[in-house]
Amino acid sequence: MSSSTEPTMTIPTYDDVLIAHERIKPYIHETPVLTSQFINELTGAELFFKCENFQKAGAFKVRGACNAVFGLDEATASIGVATHSSGNHALSLSYAAGRRGIPVTVVMPRTAPQAKKDAVRGYGGTIVECEPSTSSREAVFAEVVAESGAEFVHPYNDPRVIAGQGTCSKELIGQVENLDAVVAPIGGGGMISGTCLTLSNIAPEVKIYAAEPLNADDAARSFRAGHIIADDAPETVADGLKVPLKDLTWHFVSNQITDILTATEEEIVDAMKLIWKRMKIVMEPSSAVPLATILKNPELFKGKRVGVIITGGNVDLDALPWMKD
Amino acid sequence: MSSSTEPTMTIPTYDDVLIAHERIKPYIHETPVLTSQFINELTGAELFFKCENFQKAGAFKVRGACNAVFGLDEATASIGVATHSSGNHALSLSYAAGRRGIPVTVVMPRTAPQAKKDAVRGYGGTIVECEPSTSSREAVFAEVVAESGAEFVHPYNDPRVIAGQGTCSKELIGQVENLDAVVAPIGGGGMISGTCLTLSNIAPEVKIYAAEPLNADDAARSFRAGHIIADDAPETVADGLKVPLKDLTWHFVSNQITDILTATEEEIVDAMKLIWKRMKIVMEPSSAVPLATILKNPELFKGKRVGVIITGGNVDLDALPWMKD
Repeated sequence: MSSSTEPTMTIPTYDDVLIAHERIKPYIHETPVLTSQFINELTGAELFFKCENFQKAGAFKVRGACNAVFGLDEATASIGVATHSSGNHALSLSYAAGRRGIPVTVVMPRTAPQAKKDAVRGYGGTIVECEPSTSSREAVFAEVVAESGAEFVHPYNDPRVIAGQGTCSKELIGQVENLDAVVAPIGGGGMISGTCLTLSNIAPEVKIYAAEPLNADDAARSFRAGHIIADDAPETVADGLKVPLKDLTWHFVSNQITDILTATEEEIVDAMKLIWKRMKIVMEPSSAVPLATILKNPELFKGKRVGVIITGGNVDLDALPWMKD
Repeated sequence: MSSSTEPTMTIPTYDDVLIAHERIKPYIHETPVLTSQFINELTGAELFFKCENFQKAGAFKVRGACNAVFGLDEATASIGVATHSSGNHALSLSYAAGRRGIPVTVVMPRTAPQAKKDAVRGYGGTIVECEPSTSSREAVFAEVVAESGAEFVHPYNDPRVIAGQGTCSKELIGQVENLDAVVAPIGGGGMISGTCLTLSNIAPEVKIYAAEPLNADDAARSFRAGHIIADDAPETVADGLKVPLKDLTWHFVSNQITDILTATEEEIVDAMKLIWKRMKIVMEPSSAVPLATILKNPELFKGKRVGVIITGGNVDLDALPWMKD
């Protein structure tokens, strides 16, 4: 097998999740778990929606970002942190750094939505723009780190980040008894890895399903092939799920999940509208992929108690996916 | 003064609210109270949002409708209930009648949104269509009642309905200590009347502000004039707030509220987007009028603890107000 099967970084343990939870509690919400009688009747399952759209900075990513930022020693922290992201990790790292009062630099494509840029600046982050390509992003980011000496916090392929994300399902297990399964979206695999880390330790009987857009199904194909397959720039409405697996998240995905289920663009948008309409919550297209896969595979979930991770709520209200047609 | 100052119906008492609450508890949610640090910083006030958008049938109106339906004696109930409404009262009465298993007929304008019609039928209601005019509605409704003998449950000018709506602020007072004020939208005045009824009895020190669209400010003009002024078909994005006061709600409005504040269409839509974006909840334009008036009158609320009633969440996702421009 290729080197992708052996992580070059330390694999986090459940002790790291426990430490992370104590560390980040002052800076995050214990998010609520919501249910919908209508959607339960529709699916024949009992669904428990863990609402990270109500999380600080609007997404679960603040858990990992806070764990990384508040775990730094004083000397490292004082120099600051940096990352590249056009999405929720950018907001979350800026929020975490702002709470600790340390510098944060985010490399973002110049084409990133103005609302996201405004939010990063609102939390006190500095933005360095790059062209919307991997080569430009990497070159600009290398320059930023070389100049500032800032600590790189990767959006998902980082043991501190994965341990932080693991606190979400730790809360969920405390909030809902006797779950049969958990379904979470998969992009780079940070949330799924944290879920695996926690559940394999405190609730190993719970099945873990990853939910992925069919248009960006590199994780599903990797899972079946037995090695990482990385797509170049897939196109999907679930814009948080375009990134590929990396060695550390592949470790969890390849060893601990039950299956990866996929949904079409139309199924994702339908599930998103269903949640908005019936549950009255604002959440991102990425967060609708789990329900889309549950609706598509009723036989897997009928009669089961299922945790569903609503990963975030940062959506552009002026460009909702059902308005684009 | 005209007869509009003397209600022709019995004025409900706080005992009626207590009885209503026991009666309807099995059929409603105790809705959560949400807060937003961002909006608190923006307003300089501490705002506590009572989220009736998460209520059964998506609106507070289910409280009054359930109180009316479950308070009927068996003989009356078995004949059924009827109302005219193109909005949340239609859904709520259909939900309540469905839970009791009795017939319900709703007279709706043929131009009412398909989604609302579908929802009424989904709860088991029968729709009789009328033309979108007051004269047609009244004629068709009179026919329905004459034929069926059904019990009329008015959307707001009904003591059973007002007592039911009063359970909302009863919950709020139990959930949030030391409120200085409550702000609720005003259309026909059912929610505001229930709020007055409850607060004047259990928290008389709390100021009560009604919030109204400037485009449909008949309640504000009535309040200043000292008698009911009813507008004919005002136009506002806050479609739940177009109806006029009636004698029973005028009793509470004229005697017990602190003031009526108004907001422009643009201010209402801006407040709605702010709540969706920052609080990640789906709510109706009508529900945004209170925050719009708070943002417009900061001196009234600065440093105060303020309850804000989010009245409902039944919005057409395909026709959001900021998409119409």
